[in-house]
Amino acid sequence: MKTAVYPGTFDPITNGHIDIIERALKIFDKVIIAVSVDSTKNPLFTVEERIKMISEAVKDIQRIEIDSFSGLLVDYAKKTNAIAIIRGLRAVSDFEYEFQMALMNRRLNEKIETVFLMPNEKFTYLNSSIVREVVSLGGDISDFVPENVKNELKKK
Amino acid sequence: MKTAVYPGTFDPITNGHIDIIERALKIFDKVIIAVSVDSTKNPLFTVEERIKMISEAVKDIQRIEIDSFSGLLVDYAKKTNAIAIIRGLRAVSDFEYEFQMALMNRRLNEKIETVFLMPNEKFTYLNSSIVREVVSLGGDISDFVPENVKNELKKK
Amino acid sequence: MKTAVYPGTFDPITNGHIDIIERALKIFDKVIIAVSVDSTKNPLFTVEERIKMISEAVKDIQRIEIDSFSGLLVDYAKKTNAIAIIRGLRAVSDFEYEFQMALMNRRLNEKIETVFLMPNEKFTYLNSSIVREVVSLGGDISDFVPENVKNELKKK
Amino acid sequence: MKTAVYPGTFDPITNGHIDIIERALKIFDKVIIAVSVDSTKNPLFTVEERIKMISEAVKDIQRIEIDSFSGLLVDYAKKTNAIAIIRGLRAVSDFEYEFQMALMNRRLNEKIETVFLMPNEKFTYLNSSIVREVVSLGGDISDFVPENVKNELKKK
Amino acid sequence: MKTAVYPGTFDPITNGHIDIIERALKIFDKVIIAVSVDSTKNPLFTVEERIKMISEAVKDIQRIEIDSFSGLLVDYAKKTNAIAIIRGLRAVSDFEYEFQMALMNRRLNEKIETVFLMPNEKFTYLNSSIVREVVSLGGDISDFVPENVKNELKKK
Amino acid sequence: MKTAVYPGTFDPITNGHIDIIERALKIFDKVIIAVSVDSTKNPLFTVEERIKMISEAVKDIQRIEIDSFSGLLVDYAKKTNAIAIIRGLRAVSDFEYEFQMALMNRRLNEKIETVFLMPNEKFTYLNSSIVREVVSLGGDISDFVPENVKNELKKK
Repeated sequence: MKTAVYPGTFDPITNGHIDIIERALKIFDKVIIAVSVDSTKNPLFTVEERIKMISEAVKDIQRIEIDSFSGLLVDYAKKTNAIAIIRGLRAVSDFEYEFQMALMNRRLNEKIETVFLMPNEKFTYLNSSIVREVVSLGGDISDFVPENVKNELKKK
Repeated sequence: MKTAVYPGTFDPITNGHIDIIERALKIFDKVIIAVSVDSTKNPLFTVEERIKMISEAVKDIQRIEIDSFSGLLVDYAKKTNAIAIIRGLRAVSDFEYEFQMALMNRRLNEKIETVFLMPNEKFTYLNSSIVREVVSLGGDISDFVPENVKNELKKK
Repeated sequence: MKTAVYPGTFDPITNGHIDIIERALKIFDKVIIAVSVDSTKNPLFTVEERIKMISEAVKDIQRIEIDSFSGLLVDYAKKTNAIAIIRGLRAVSDFEYEFQMALMNRRLNEKIETVFLMPNEKFTYLNSSIVREVVSLGGDISDFVPENVKNELKKK
Repeated sequence: MKTAVYPGTFDPITNGHIDIIERALKIFDKVIIAVSVDSTKNPLFTVEERIKMISEAVKDIQRIEIDSFSGLLVDYAKKTNAIAIIRGLRAVSDFEYEFQMALMNRRLNEKIETVFLMPNEKFTYLNSSIVREVVSLGGDISDFVPENVKNELKKK
Repeated sequence: MKTAVYPGTFDPITNGHIDIIERALKIFDKVIIAVSVDSTKNPLFTVEERIKMISEAVKDIQRIEIDSFSGLLVDYAKKTNAIAIIRGLRAVSDFEYEFQMALMNRRLNEKIETVFLMPNEKFTYLNSSIVREVVSLGGDISDFVPENVKNELKKK
Repeated sequence: MKTAVYPGTFDPITNGHIDIIERALKIFDKVIIAVSVDSTKNPLFTVEERIKMISEAVKDIQRIEIDSFSGLLVDYAKKTNAIAIIRGLRAVSDFEYEFQMALMNRRLNEKIETVFLMPNEKFTYLNSSIVREVVSLGGDISDFVPENVKNELKKK
């Protein structure tokens, strides 16, 4: 069984993330959605809230697991017997940061491969940070996040 | 009458901003310089100070209006009957961020078009942040900002 | 009346071009679709065929004019009393080439401004060359070009 | 069994290509190396020569198949029951071209996913074209291509 | 004697920095490693600690000097009779930031030239910030920094 | 004495090339302007014409030599006792191509360093190819090339 880890902050999960998860499931037998605990960013939602929102958002998708991790991503991947890390690539600025991380991860554990997938182009310029900004300014984010995430964002 | 909004933090306004405003006035009948109030960055100048500096710097330019706004830019544009948002494009890093914002704004209100203009190449690498840094290190910024802005920067 | 020129090879016109034309018409009173005669590329269609395909594809759009030009674009713009050149920006590689051309045009005639518009993201990676390639390999291009262009491409 | 197609011109195969093939085999059960016949470029080697060089270069690698194809890549992938197309990503310029092709392929057949892998950084700036140029200028290419390819290049 | 300044935060010095220093010494007679005191970033090491780590890391390299500076880099360069500023270029994102700084420095003192060197490709995606992050997550950084820096990082 | 080679097609030499030569002379004791004979591009001017135009254009600059070369650039650099290759960097697209060439040259001879210099920003988007195109379309190129080159271009 081939398992991949899809790591991220997921603060909150967006439709772009879900698009990547569904594509990864075409390639891998199992995908672990792994919420980073150590992220240095000041998060809007707690790790628990983020996991709960993900669980609800992907409850109809099979062959996935939701978890959190701290420490090195490659150590977490090894522990869970994952052979690959999944990353979505949208834009040139993504590209360089992602390559830096992928090369570093390869140096730290050369057995774990990083696999890049391309989201639907309608999600090209979507990320959690712009979603949080639009909500805070009073904009409608129905196109960008699942229904349950939209509700949680409105509460904040 | 065709009106465009030129939004920004303008902390402070630079000669690059003024170059874009003059180009926008060739295309549009009126340009509203709109200072963003909600900007998450920690500003050097208050919104009032920024508006005052802009007023002085562009006092000889016709067909403009200076204002501040909070909330969604597209809502502000709609309220002021603007048909377009003006953005200056200088470098590849601008490009991606600006496209993200432009696509998001289009999703939020498809009637407002974002129009990109190219500043004079001598302003290619100029922005408010580098101006603030050079001033704080004791450098001369006469080439980069209007006289009145230079004086205000020295006071800070 | 504010007129803009939208220059290109249009070999053939795609839905991405039409998207840009419609956006330009929100800003300008008239848009001249100007087919470049001097293009060094080896075209699939003659200038006459290209103009005929454009005419058919945009026959329901008002306030446009279709023409061909040779020589410098800025000279053509001046002759037609256009105040701006319209260009679509899709990707980083576009960006640099377009800026080179825009700066050169500005040097040749500083009165003509280049205005960049962003197509619908579903056309982000569409251009005439990929359309010709897909057709030559037997692929379906219904999503990318108007019906009449599709028929002409099949004949070739 | 999960099969992926690794398409290319392979004119000639380089160590960078082989690096990607080995990474793809960590993820997929089988990888088909598919030499494009329709390539518009003027090739140095015939398709038969290229296939022969690949066969020799990867003769010790298991679970691969070498083939040529013409027509649409997604049609070839479907015919061979491949679920994915493998592409190596090295630099920003790759990124945009590859995304254009991947989006086009997705439009032509949404079931086939494009998977991007990152070569060893020592191959970051290696491609077949620069190898051919260095050989033609009398340079040593031992680091860049397998031994048998080096010999064939010297003969040309 | 031709002197160049190699400025930076060096928080901490990495093997990538040392690679650039050695390349610069092929071109220049003397290289001054200049630690920026005014850096707005919240540093992990004090300026004194950073200078001490550099001194130890480059103790076998001739024709260098280690110093700290505050104020404008071009003023420091002038004071030390340096004719050039050395910068390493690794990726596209570097490129734009570095060009902005180089153009600004040229405006502030046109006599000081900025010279860009390319590190070994194995350092392409290495910087001080990723080193600090990997250490904080418990990863091994032996490949990225000199032995003495590794020990200091572990203490923090 | 420290010598650098500035290689290129110089078809024809532009003011941007001359700007780079003058900057290189601040760093190096001698600069050899080396016209590539093997260039695969279909040149407008013969090698002899290009050398003659360069000689005239830089006749008032000291410490330079004008030459042509065939074969590998690093072999030519070694033969002339040059320690470095000079390249101008203007835009992101330059950046990637130049890095590919620089890495390849480093592999072929690790003793020769490639040094990147930044032209005056007014030459950011200038190259020989756009100059040839503007001339062929009847445009004025006085700002882009030396007087003698302008006259030769008009003859062609």
